[in-house]
Amino acid sequence: MAKDPSDKALVPFVSVDHMMGLIHHLGFETMIRGIADRIEADFRRWESFDKTPRVASHSPVGVIELMPTSDGEMYGFKYVNGHPKNMKEGLQTVTAFGLLADVSNGYPVLLTEMTILTALRTAAMSGVAAKHLAPKGAKTMAMIGNGAQAEFQSLAMKALVGIEAVRLYDIDPAATEKCARNLEGTGLRVVKCQSPEEAIEGAEILTTCTADKQYATILSDNMVGAGVHVNAIGGDCPGKTELAPGILHRSTIFVEYPEQTRIEGEIQQLDPDHPVTELWQVIAGQKSGRSSTSEITLFDSVGFAIEDFSALCFLREAIRGTPFSTPLDLLADPDDPRDLFGMVMRAGPEAA
Amino acid sequence: MAKDPSDKALVPFVSVDHMMGLIHHLGFETMIRGIADRIEADFRRWESFDKTPRVASHSPVGVIELMPTSDGEMYGFKYVNGHPKNMKEGLQTVTAFGLLADVSNGYPVLLTEMTILTALRTAAMSGVAAKHLAPKGAKTMAMIGNGAQAEFQSLAMKALVGIEAVRLYDIDPAATEKCARNLEGTGLRVVKCQSPEEAIEGAEILTTCTADKQYATILSDNMVGAGVHVNAIGGDCPGKTELAPGILHRSTIFVEYPEQTRIEGEIQQLDPDHPVTELWQVIAGQKSGRSSTSEITLFDSVGFAIEDFSALCFLREAIRGTPFSTPLDLLADPDDPRDLFGMVMRAGPEAA
Repeated sequence: MAKDPSDKALVPFVSVDHMMGLIHHLGFETMIRGIADRIEADFRRWESFDKTPRVASHSPVGVIELMPTSDGEMYGFKYVNGHPKNMKEGLQTVTAFGLLADVSNGYPVLLTEMTILTALRTAAMSGVAAKHLAPKGAKTMAMIGNGAQAEFQSLAMKALVGIEAVRLYDIDPAATEKCARNLEGTGLRVVKCQSPEEAIEGAEILTTCTADKQYATILSDNMVGAGVHVNAIGGDCPGKTELAPGILHRSTIFVEYPEQTRIEGEIQQLDPDHPVTELWQVIAGQKSGRSSTSEITLFDSVGFAIEDFSALCFLREAIRGTPFSTPLDLLADPDDPRDLFGMVMRAGPEAA
Repeated sequence: MAKDPSDKALVPFVSVDHMMGLIHHLGFETMIRGIADRIEADFRRWESFDKTPRVASHSPVGVIELMPTSDGEMYGFKYVNGHPKNMKEGLQTVTAFGLLADVSNGYPVLLTEMTILTALRTAAMSGVAAKHLAPKGAKTMAMIGNGAQAEFQSLAMKALVGIEAVRLYDIDPAATEKCARNLEGTGLRVVKCQSPEEAIEGAEILTTCTADKQYATILSDNMVGAGVHVNAIGGDCPGKTELAPGILHRSTIFVEYPEQTRIEGEIQQLDPDHPVTELWQVIAGQKSGRSSTSEITLFDSVGFAIEDFSALCFLREAIRGTPFSTPLDLLADPDDPRDLFGMVMRAGPEAA
């Protein structure tokens, strides 16, 4: 009924279907590598970002969070929920969407699903950390917890670190079956294991990504030998950890953003002044990563807004010239900015 | 290429075009009244809301803000920018969109344009305040500043307070012409004035809504006589006020949320402990509003997240059974929540 909105009023929207189409169009590993490159580039200029803590709205059954950040040119935020009980109701524990806007005029330039994109960026982040911290020539990863992140983690470690085999374990054998089936034909050698102890045999990288919201011990102290890299994904909110404290005390610990990780990560189990290294400083060459073949390195991953920003910026470039977005009529854009009312009135049926 | 997403994955989206269609479908005043009713109902239960301050990202040219709130059942937030220099570039100074989500599972249930909806809720809020504070039987409003809010304010005061005439003034006569033209046929008697002094003649309600981002004096002390209601809209961020301090000292001041108004409103000119009344307490019957015919009442309006929440909840109801929304494929929703990767893989062209 109204005349077509102008270009500035239309925001490119990437639906779930578009996101899946883009992954198939680019290829999974290309997409992971693209996001990883962008994360590394953004971590190198870490100090140019606004680092606001997430804004959380808690309820007895879950949390809804807004995670904003800005580099002064672009502004991004992610909406994400966490509802552990959702899975029992056939819903996703975590769903997300995100937005990128132009700081110079405040107009959004991208709206996108971010459930899948978050899975990709979380895996890309783990891969970037492992590239800098894991023992040279690592070929085998133990993947403990075979839920929604497991395949993403496995393929990111293949794409970014060059692993050739994954050893899967989950308390629910059906999850392991699902993960093994999904990884068929990806080029990874997959070994299904009956216990965490079996899964870690010969693995240089130990990834933990389980879903229990409680202090659990997925890896006990005696399971983690000298020289490995521990990639701890699942300890990511207050009251949820996966590693025995002994492991933390024997490890060199790397984090995204200490202020957030001390509350949400594995290191919530440690004294608030326990030394940690910020991963961006390793990537920027300001601090060393792994210092010896016998060192245990630990990436205590909780997920930070800058990683989402990197993924959003990657996506904005990646969809150019593809059919994987549609224009969304999200912004009112009257010819005369002072005449919002007139725009509404002229859209009436009698004015058509 | 993929199978259709399930209902839970689809979020109703109200575009700018839909919003304009809905306004014409319901009628302007019905819509204002509906939002006002919802604001009053929510202000009556003020204490049941989470009141987070807005999360602002400032740049030299503007601000991008997220305004979240929740009543424990629903969660809402608004994205809104403020870029005063946009108007010179033919862009909106303020654009906005908003979202409503179910607190019990974190799933969004409504995404909507909010530039127009914010104009409606701001006017509805002013109308609600005037209904409780303006002198009984007020028939005339002076509307000083004839920009994007002016028609909305005028029609809200007609719908909610029963005014019959508006007296328009703007430093730019073109804005006054635009506003007068738009109000033709609405049933309001419109008088175009050459000065603020002319505009306030005989007016029981004085509304100021100008755009200058500076300490301006739109109303000087001697212009405001006994018994009027001042509806101050334009003083809404640090460094931007419209009223001479003398007016504030002679008025009984009503605000939405003191913590925010003391930073952003007219009362940023006063001592931080200057007494103010929270409007919700008047609406809930806990505090009195106007106490005499000679009292000057002042609503120092800055806009608060709960008003956006009210508008979002109104909209969610209002679009039911209408064509004024489309389902947006925003949320990934695999059949098995743990099998996000499998969902992506099965969406591939070879699986179609």
